[in-house]
Amino acid sequence: MKLVNFIGFDADDTLWHNETIYSLAQGKFKKLLAEYHDEEWIDKRLYETEMVNIKFYGYGIKSFTLSMIETAIELSEGRITGGEIKTILSFGREMMITPVTVFEGVLDVLTQLSKAYKLLLITKGDLIDQQAKIAQSGLESFFFGIEIVSNKLPSTYEVILERYKIDPGQFLMVGNSLRSDVLPILEAGGQAVYIPYHTTWAHEEVPAEEQRDHNYFQLEHIGQLPSLLKERSN
Amino acid sequence: MKLVNFIGFDADDTLWHNETIYSLAQGKFKKLLAEYHDEEWIDKRLYETEMVNIKFYGYGIKSFTLSMIETAIELSEGRITGGEIKTILSFGREMMITPVTVFEGVLDVLTQLSKAYKLLLITKGDLIDQQAKIAQSGLESFFFGIEIVSNKLPSTYEVILERYKIDPGQFLMVGNSLRSDVLPILEAGGQAVYIPYHTTWAHEEVPAEEQRDHNYFQLEHIGQLPSLLKERSN
Repeated sequence: MKLVNFIGFDADDTLWHNETIYSLAQGKFKKLLAEYHDEEWIDKRLYETEMVNIKFYGYGIKSFTLSMIETAIELSEGRITGGEIKTILSFGREMMITPVTVFEGVLDVLTQLSKAYKLLLITKGDLIDQQAKIAQSGLESFFFGIEIVSNKLPSTYEVILERYKIDPGQFLMVGNSLRSDVLPILEAGGQAVYIPYHTTWAHEEVPAEEQRDHNYFQLEHIGQLPSLLKERSN
Repeated sequence: MKLVNFIGFDADDTLWHNETIYSLAQGKFKKLLAEYHDEEWIDKRLYETEMVNIKFYGYGIKSFTLSMIETAIELSEGRITGGEIKTILSFGREMMITPVTVFEGVLDVLTQLSKAYKLLLITKGDLIDQQAKIAQSGLESFFFGIEIVSNKLPSTYEVILERYKIDPGQFLMVGNSLRSDVLPILEAGGQAVYIPYHTTWAHEEVPAEEQRDHNYFQLEHIGQLPSLLKERSN
């Protein structure tokens, strides 16, 4: 690892739980539609609806709620009732007020690293969802900049690094998604640490052949990050 | 007017039409619910639902669509059908694909001003809605920075000005909302030009007593901005 001065952190499923909140809501959604279809089919159709809608709606809870409503109407062939749709709206609202659970070790890691590095938070998703989670996490003050973006492409990282006058070679990105946090920053000339989360949304998965020939570090837990940085900078 | 070097522009209803897109959708929504209630009552209840939901959902088309669905279920006492909810979803989707109509004169004004001033775009709303409109408007290259925010409070402006190392005294904000574009930047020590739009969403209206004792310039049309700046800087 080359010497880095700046570390970017992904937020959802890197600093705190997120995917579990979606899985829980999806579980309730499948129960609600159980009279119409089996769970596997509901999962498949919801995912397909989400993929079509992402280009209109973007990421986040509102987008997911609208996709659940659309899927429910489709799968029930319009027989879904107003009351059931209201229940789906309540799934979305519950997601929004679910307290943020910061991963064990994150506070220690950020406390340590913020003394030696400048830290950035770079998170993909809905503006208001992400702002609420950042505020609630209590971690805001560790970061000299917070960027909420609608997608994480190589160009997204390039624009951010340019804005902060950061040389890509001095930048390391840490996150749980190969597609969003690792591969694009490598393409933009930076470095990356990949910390997989136990559940990955299918949309963030990357086929094995796209992963080949890339140089990134992989850790099991964010708590291992300070030692990796120390080792590698010696 | 003190000499300014930086001009911030609001986007929706300042550079391009926006409120009309919402009014059109709301008109269709009222027709859809005509069998349940009269138009005035539907307007009132939809607005109330939006105001409750804004703190969860934020601003933007997805938020508005979810509020329409919730209002339709309430006002029909659950009798609204899946097919009708699907129609409401389609109102939201139509809003999203409505082409951006840039106001007459905007291109000229930005071309002129970008030679003498550094221009910022500061817009409130949903990340993906705003990005799509900015891209479509063709105006992106006039701005040295684009900030999409979830709210426009004095502190919002302070954070942005600090990020770009802009002295508030050298900053002028131009927009159609007293609540969002004028009063908060005055409080943050900047200057403002208010250009009312023919329709203002009730939420953005400011009672007369809050408008008193504030120093801002008012124009009828953005085309008048270059002359105002010229006059005042002589």
